[in-house]
Amino acid sequence: MARKASLSGFPEWLPEERLIELHVLEVLQRTFELHGFSSIETRAVETVDHLLRKGEIDKEVYAVSRLQAEEASASESGLALHYDLTVPFARYVVENAGHLAFPFRRFQIQKCWRGERPQEGRAREFTQADIDVVGDGTLPFRYDVELALAVVEALGALPIPDFTLRVNNRKLAEGFYRAIGLTDTAAVLRSIDKLEKIGPEKVGVLLRAEVGAGEEQVRLALELAGIRTPDTSFVERVRELGVTSELLEEGLEELRQVVGEASRRAPGRVVADLSIARGLDYYTGTVYETVLDGHEGLGSICSGGRYDSLARKGNRTFPGVGLSIGVTRIVSRILSQGFATVSRAVPTAVLVTLADDDAWSQAQDVATALRGRGISAEVAATAEKFGKQIKFADRRGIPFVWFTSADGTHEVKDIRSGDQVVADPSSWTPPADDLRPVVARA
Amino acid sequence: MARKASLSGFPEWLPEERLIELHVLEVLQRTFELHGFSSIETRAVETVDHLLRKGEIDKEVYAVSRLQAEEASASESGLALHYDLTVPFARYVVENAGHLAFPFRRFQIQKCWRGERPQEGRAREFTQADIDVVGDGTLPFRYDVELALAVVEALGALPIPDFTLRVNNRKLAEGFYRAIGLTDTAAVLRSIDKLEKIGPEKVGVLLRAEVGAGEEQVRLALELAGIRTPDTSFVERVRELGVTSELLEEGLEELRQVVGEASRRAPGRVVADLSIARGLDYYTGTVYETVLDGHEGLGSICSGGRYDSLARKGNRTFPGVGLSIGVTRIVSRILSQGFATVSRAVPTAVLVTLADDDAWSQAQDVATALRGRGISAEVAATAEKFGKQIKFADRRGIPFVWFTSADGTHEVKDIRSGDQVVADPSSWTPPADDLRPVVARA
Repeated sequence: MARKASLSGFPEWLPEERLIELHVLEVLQRTFELHGFSSIETRAVETVDHLLRKGEIDKEVYAVSRLQAEEASASESGLALHYDLTVPFARYVVENAGHLAFPFRRFQIQKCWRGERPQEGRAREFTQADIDVVGDGTLPFRYDVELALAVVEALGALPIPDFTLRVNNRKLAEGFYRAIGLTDTAAVLRSIDKLEKIGPEKVGVLLRAEVGAGEEQVRLALELAGIRTPDTSFVERVRELGVTSELLEEGLEELRQVVGEASRRAPGRVVADLSIARGLDYYTGTVYETVLDGHEGLGSICSGGRYDSLARKGNRTFPGVGLSIGVTRIVSRILSQGFATVSRAVPTAVLVTLADDDAWSQAQDVATALRGRGISAEVAATAEKFGKQIKFADRRGIPFVWFTSADGTHEVKDIRSGDQVVADPSSWTPPADDLRPVVARA
Repeated sequence: MARKASLSGFPEWLPEERLIELHVLEVLQRTFELHGFSSIETRAVETVDHLLRKGEIDKEVYAVSRLQAEEASASESGLALHYDLTVPFARYVVENAGHLAFPFRRFQIQKCWRGERPQEGRAREFTQADIDVVGDGTLPFRYDVELALAVVEALGALPIPDFTLRVNNRKLAEGFYRAIGLTDTAAVLRSIDKLEKIGPEKVGVLLRAEVGAGEEQVRLALELAGIRTPDTSFVERVRELGVTSELLEEGLEELRQVVGEASRRAPGRVVADLSIARGLDYYTGTVYETVLDGHEGLGSICSGGRYDSLARKGNRTFPGVGLSIGVTRIVSRILSQGFATVSRAVPTAVLVTLADDDAWSQAQDVATALRGRGISAEVAATAEKFGKQIKFADRRGIPFVWFTSADGTHEVKDIRSGDQVVADPSSWTPPADDLRPVVARA
């Protein structure tokens, strides 16, 4: 489970590991569909211009160019691999606005690529699973609550430890900092963002140096960032700081709604965390991030927020709110920590054996009958001794072997228990747990 | 359904089109799993060295490089996007040989990229669905038959017109051509490959010019290539040409087995076609290609063959046999020809309406109860007039709307028929056909 990738930052899974990844993907897709999100995919490449407009650090981007094109300089080709699914989705919405019904709910599960230094939890090729709702002109705030609930449900169905969805609100933060005289909100947030890493004292030093904050401003900023409540009591805690502004009130009310409803419906999963600064330069209201409890060092496994304008088309704006789940980050941790088990390594439930080489076609009839009823089956390729054919099934992790006698009797053997019974290919069914590989919490 | 891609050769689907693609992918995955194939994925990039070793035309390859790397010349970075799934799979087998149980059966469904001139049926980004069986040292011939049967079953379950799997055998072709004195088999096959496009007369001219074939050699080569039978009668037809060789006999027997068994199990789907030359420079036995009847111009929708050595590791060889289904090519044709319909555009079965804004949380309870029983539901975001909420459901294609009165009575309305009934969120279920979007043949 801890093999080294042959190309650093590009993980690949063995078949039994892939079964766990498939389970994660199926749970996410199923949950998103139950919540009414439509699947889309976008192409892997965007124009470099479009990617960089959104302000991502350009050196992380992989450019794409025809290998044998004349003057094959990467930047000239104008194409690059997408580094997230939000920027491509924004383009998709603008291009297809005439064909979509707004508010448009979509999920998108695809690979992304970043040329970053690989480290645990940070790959160069990784799968993201995004959900967003995007409106045409306006988008009711309720979706900020709904999306938090949808991801809490999705993550809660995965074989991972407890997690915490941390929520903050940009209006709250900006309203507060402005009210105490710190107007360069972005700079304040960049400093506050380091709180978990370097501690309040050093953040204080930073605030003084970066935005010229005074003693009282530092104290209030740190007090605000220190507020973390599993319910709506953060509202009182903020009020106690004695700072007021219209924007702050608006942010408090929005955050109160998200945390109130989410903590009621998913107790213990959601906290108001007023230190969360994530991407606040482009989010405009709610921001989310999610940590695996006890694995905070892994980074956020699910982040997002509200954009006033995910995309623009002429004077039309498309506000959105969404979250992005780091599938590869989660699956890597599940595998390295053994959070999940899989009942077998292959889809096959039954190996149909061969009594002799001429029985192959008849064996295919048995396999066809089983498959017709949803039972995965394969046929032995050669009529080796039964012992060898059983050993082959055992080595592959196939639980049942099927025997057909010359007189047409069928028997099936559970090679784990050794039990062997007479069976009919048109009616025999394995126990439900043996029908498909089952992924479970370890 | 015929929107133009904003980047030529990189098709993207609308949500309802994506439902059809998802259906195709689900059918393929399900069929492959029923046949005991394990899912794997490989990284999107390979080293340029590895990609070009297999002899693909290098100008079709997309190189990848860090956008801001110094000297960002594409070829120097040494990485490129894979153009198929066979070459990456060969590397995966070698790297993970110690962790795999052979014969290893795998399926792999992923995007591939080629820098070719886009045209109908030929995109620059496209999804392939591959199945292969690979052995360690040896691989019984039976798998050549089994894989043909598996893809015939998979393709037969798709909403496409009838198709024909054309099978040939390299040993047959090479044995025949050598026996009549044409020893540059590759050159002969390149000429024969043009038969469908340019006709026998021009192929004859080519054979004379390219390999110095004489009158009788041309006649025999064209006679052989003209043989196409829906059963094993091709064996007699070849024998009538009076040419014999050991290799030819071996090829005849292999092809007889594939076509005999396949035409028995899937009548009308499989033909022996002795003109098929596909990739004969690296296939070593059976070769397959598949055309949609009446859409031959689209090119092959599923091709493959047998390799004596898919991969090598020291003195270990891994023979394989496999086929690759062109998912994007098939889905594009389904969409452009309207071969399939989808019952609605969104996963949502029920829109839970709001009588007033305070009812939102209660409405979420209804939605949660429905989802808990596998019914996709979403909640209206604002308490507009019911007429507007119903119109919203109608516009999105949601078949049912849910009403909750202040007194706690629930009713659900089928907005297509107008029927409205009292319902309980813990037990009401839509008709099976309305549970999820249903894709069907048009």
